[in-house]
Amino acid sequence: MKIHPRCAPCLLSRVQFEAELSTNDVSLQKKAVLAGIEVLRKYLIDGAPATHISTKIHREAYRVLGDIDPYREKKQHSNEAAKKLLPAIRDFVAEKDSFRRAVLASIIGNSFDFGVLGFDADREIAKETVMKQFERGLDVDDTDRMKSMLENVVYLTDNCGEIFFDTLLFEEIRKLSGRITLVVRGAPILNDVTMEEVEELGLDKKVDMVLTTGSNAIGVCLREAPPELVEALGSASLIISKGMANYETMSEYDFKPIAYLLKTKCESVAEAMGLRRNMNVARVEE
Amino acid sequence: MKIHPRCAPCLLSRVQFEAELSTNDVSLQKKAVLAGIEVLRKYLIDGAPATHISTKIHREAYRVLGDIDPYREKKQHSNEAAKKLLPAIRDFVAEKDSFRRAVLASIIGNSFDFGVLGFDADREIAKETVMKQFERGLDVDDTDRMKSMLENVVYLTDNCGEIFFDTLLFEEIRKLSGRITLVVRGAPILNDVTMEEVEELGLDKKVDMVLTTGSNAIGVCLREAPPELVEALGSASLIISKGMANYETMSEYDFKPIAYLLKTKCESVAEAMGLRRNMNVARVEE
Repeated sequence: MKIHPRCAPCLLSRVQFEAELSTNDVSLQKKAVLAGIEVLRKYLIDGAPATHISTKIHREAYRVLGDIDPYREKKQHSNEAAKKLLPAIRDFVAEKDSFRRAVLASIIGNSFDFGVLGFDADREIAKETVMKQFERGLDVDDTDRMKSMLENVVYLTDNCGEIFFDTLLFEEIRKLSGRITLVVRGAPILNDVTMEEVEELGLDKKVDMVLTTGSNAIGVCLREAPPELVEALGSASLIISKGMANYETMSEYDFKPIAYLLKTKCESVAEAMGLRRNMNVARVEE
Repeated sequence: MKIHPRCAPCLLSRVQFEAELSTNDVSLQKKAVLAGIEVLRKYLIDGAPATHISTKIHREAYRVLGDIDPYREKKQHSNEAAKKLLPAIRDFVAEKDSFRRAVLASIIGNSFDFGVLGFDADREIAKETVMKQFERGLDVDDTDRMKSMLENVVYLTDNCGEIFFDTLLFEEIRKLSGRITLVVRGAPILNDVTMEEVEELGLDKKVDMVLTTGSNAIGVCLREAPPELVEALGSASLIISKGMANYETMSEYDFKPIAYLLKTKCESVAEAMGLRRNMNVARVEE
């Protein structure tokens, strides 16, 4: 996915957001924002892929802030909020049509993205969001096609919080005799899941194998990925790609079949997918 | 008011917003955003007043877009929406405590700012916003003090749409034998009122005199203001300053007494005033 000019203010707002998470020192926040402006100035001009710029802008902001993980606390809050919601969601999924509902739940979990403009960490808002989204259902629904491709799944995770909802889908995949290779980021970036959360939440016990992307790049950057990941992506019966950042990168490569599970939280991703904003999407590309 | 780093993404998002209003040509939108980035890069660094930078960034965007008024249609929509709401608001104001209520109405009208992130031009949302705000009332209420200072008012207008609500306050000021010098922007900028709307809406008949700020600067830029305005500001019994942009500039000067009527729509203005976001403010400074 190529970057759109409207990505520029959004990326810069995330830099400011993480600068405020990291420090109360406004002059340091300003340095981070100015560093972000430099990245935009240099890379917006030549139409690079969106995640190429966003990896650069966040790495530069983290460097200037001297903070390898500004989202540390946010991630914990996010996990706590999701954990509290999990029992109700589990009941909903178990009630009927459990595979489709688990897919929907994992997409709804994708709304737990505290870095995106306009979403608040407030639990009441989160609960309302979840309930509204369940009512909405899937706007793009390729779940039936997914079901026949679960033999050897590579599951690209996205955010903390969301990961709790993903576990319901892990259970469904395993019920259908699927094997799961979980992929998390190689180092902290935004509120994405890393090996730290794998260990803390015991995720390794819910899947068959865990790999990392090899770095803190946004989404999946093949140049920085370990060979095991490249091989796993190449031999998967289905790649399940969660969230916008994974879509933004995976859509640059040619791994198939791939199921994009995401909420189109921004205009640019919605446009690239030929959809509208705020849709719940489970789209298989073969 | 000095600029805060969080103003940078917000300013850039407004540039993108007006670029999208002006053209569907994404490469031209990108040029406008890149021009905005250059302005931020140059002027964010030295802690200039917020409006100094925002005047520069919008002028630069308009120049690159080759468009002297990207908000042309938005302003018309805004006026149409406000006009439809006016009868209900007029009834509410007339019911009781009319001066205070007219002040509140004019502040609520300040929510009709289509350029600020998160507010939508949708009439249902506008109506809901209005009703909720009336219930909320004034968070800072110096209306009683204002009432004794109305002899010779200089009224600094803000946005289209909002201006309809302001007319209810003009009527109250005149009922209390006050004289009104209305001040509008000297040329189109954002969705601010200009002489074009004064003529179109017959505003000159509702006040005693109309002046302009002399340019399309954000808020009031004294260096670009005609001498009549500087004199009027100096000799006013009360300056009524509507909205955030007028606050951002007038708070740099020393004209007193001044009543800031505004909604604290952003964190930076709220912080500068020692308040929280989304407050309805009628504050007199003497």
